Amino acid sequence: MNYQEAGVDIDRKAGALRAAAQKIKATYTPQVLRGIGAFGGMMEASRLKEMAAPVLVASTDGVGTKTLLAAQTGRYGGLGFDLVHHSVNDLLVQGARPLFFMDYIASARLEAEVLAAVLESLAEACKAVGMPLLGGETAEMPGVYHEGGLDLVGTIVGVVDKDKIVDGAQVQPGDVLLALPSSGLHTNGYSLARKVFAGWNLEEPRPQLGGQSLAEALLVPHRCYLEEVDLLQREGIEIRAMAHITGGGVYENLPRVLPQGLGAEIRRGTFPVPPIFELIQRAGNVAEQEMFRVFNMGLGYILVLSSDMASGAGTLLTQSYPVGYIMEGSGIKVV
Amino acid sequence: MNYQEAGVDIDRKAGALRAAAQKIKATYTPQVLRGIGAFGGMMEASRLKEMAAPVLVASTDGVGTKTLLAAQTGRYGGLGFDLVHHSVNDLLVQGARPLFFMDYIASARLEAEVLAAVLESLAEACKAVGMPLLGGETAEMPGVYHEGGLDLVGTIVGVVDKDKIVDGAQVQPGDVLLALPSSGLHTNGYSLARKVFAGWNLEEPRPQLGGQSLAEALLVPHRCYLEEVDLLQREGIEIRAMAHITGGGVYENLPRVLPQGLGAEIRRGTFPVPPIFELIQRAGNVAEQEMFRVFNMGLGYILVLSSDMASGAGTLLTQSYPVGYIMEGSGIKVV
Repeated sequence: MNYQEAGVDIDRKAGALRAAAQKIKATYTPQVLRGIGAFGGMMEASRLKEMAAPVLVASTDGVGTKTLLAAQTGRYGGLGFDLVHHSVNDLLVQGARPLFFMDYIASARLEAEVLAAVLESLAEACKAVGMPLLGGETAEMPGVYHEGGLDLVGTIVGVVDKDKIVDGAQVQPGDVLLALPSSGLHTNGYSLARKVFAGWNLEEPRPQLGGQSLAEALLVPHRCYLEEVDLLQREGIEIRAMAHITGGGVYENLPRVLPQGLGAEIRRGTFPVPPIFELIQRAGNVAEQEMFRVFNMGLGYILVLSSDMASGAGTLLTQSYPVGYIMEGSGIKVV
Repeated sequence: MNYQEAGVDIDRKAGALRAAAQKIKATYTPQVLRGIGAFGGMMEASRLKEMAAPVLVASTDGVGTKTLLAAQTGRYGGLGFDLVHHSVNDLLVQGARPLFFMDYIASARLEAEVLAAVLESLAEACKAVGMPLLGGETAEMPGVYHEGGLDLVGTIVGVVDKDKIVDGAQVQPGDVLLALPSSGLHTNGYSLARKVFAGWNLEEPRPQLGGQSLAEALLVPHRCYLEEVDLLQREGIEIRAMAHITGGGVYENLPRVLPQGLGAEIRRGTFPVPPIFELIQRAGNVAEQEMFRVFNMGLGYILVLSSDMASGAGTLLTQSYPVGYIMEGSGIKVV
């Protein structure tokens, strides 16, 4: 199915949706043979022919209950960036680069303005990383979704040459964890955050957030780490492993890319924790360990590098923090 | 994200989910380098290297409100087949063949037994067409989904060599429409069907349905046309266009693959209409044209062939029906 089949005929809808369709088309590269409207989106894979052993990499993700906060505040314009950036980061971890993106937007009823805002943000985010939004599906299912409930899901497909896969095999005890900062919650922990702030005024500027409102601080889009990883690899920095810190925090995401028998220690105070996390922790009386299990706590993306490479990388990057080390043993300790 | 991140740690759940994980792993071919548990699923694309000009084809789809009927009757075991077959057919239309599949399952709360039933059916359907279930995502969002409401969405990625793309360019007036029968509603028209049968006993055997119950007749899985299309292409039958008849029926799906200036005429009585459609039409007092707009009416998949090729195809296929012709003009007439 596609936007037309689902009854959301872009040509028949308001100017808002026409503008979104234009933005989607603007993501198309010359490799795109068929986009929205076809049974399947089509893209020439000439890039793969040039690789010695191309490996396709794919990830499916949603933005979770961040949509509820978007609905509550009427701010839908960041959700597309959230989804696309989350997805690109998941590919990056294995050394892959994006080829194309597919989206799914569903609700009880899709207002044209909401759909347009989400589609435009998806298209803009895709365009910024040079990735066509090749197709998608919309669905209106009042029996499945709550009124106002929206789900936003996407599948990213990318590619990496087999000998360029980053798989953690070279990670050694003593390797440095170099963290790239997050912009805030990214797309995880919204169930807890919404519970903590239930009944709070979301639009009131708050000094603890540097004058931002809760709505602004909570909805700031997920950061994309493509540029940083591109820069490091272009400059010959050998990256031994990478982890995208999503649901489960450092405790669950870092071990996924480390070899058996290795763990890591992360030191508090070596990296900035965005003020929104401190507010959540205080307002919700949440234990520190729980905070690190639910949220990224400022650690958006972690690179594992030899100490030599880490100092090289540190001088190349505008914002990066050596936050800890790889250790013998297993598990992640935050000390 | 993946099953682990989403809190559905397969190892920690009951035997039901372990069995599903085994079935998912059984879909993996030697080309699969990473499956569930990784940030992204990975698959070697050696097949693409052998093609002159490989084109990736992708489609994202959901099974819509068929999930509500599954929930109502506790029969979830067909949904995976519905989603996978729908997706495979969408690729076939353009001449592509499946490479891999990604799924998304979301609900207010995911019962282990329901999740296992859906995952197992997805895995079995993927296995049967030789396609790895490379990854997926599960989400529990009580604020977004109704209690018992379930959404099941998937993205299929396939490939076709550029000169093998079936694009309708060779379609001529007089070409034959050869229909492959559907098994029933497939994955479209459930909102109307559920409305028509609201309050009916779904489990009672009905003589009008050859002794089947409504639940059985309505939940029969979407058919897959891969085998038929494979057979025809292997035997040298030149297929000029193909349409998968989904939402919007023949009226909306057939024109999508015909060149400008061509339409088609379909003749009633040339193909069997499954009894469930006659029951819906009578019980709901639905106009004939509306039936053909909402449902496939027995026309699951339509091949457009020269008349010579059509008779050749007809002898090769066990079940196929010449149901009409390509005409000058535009639009689809059912006469």
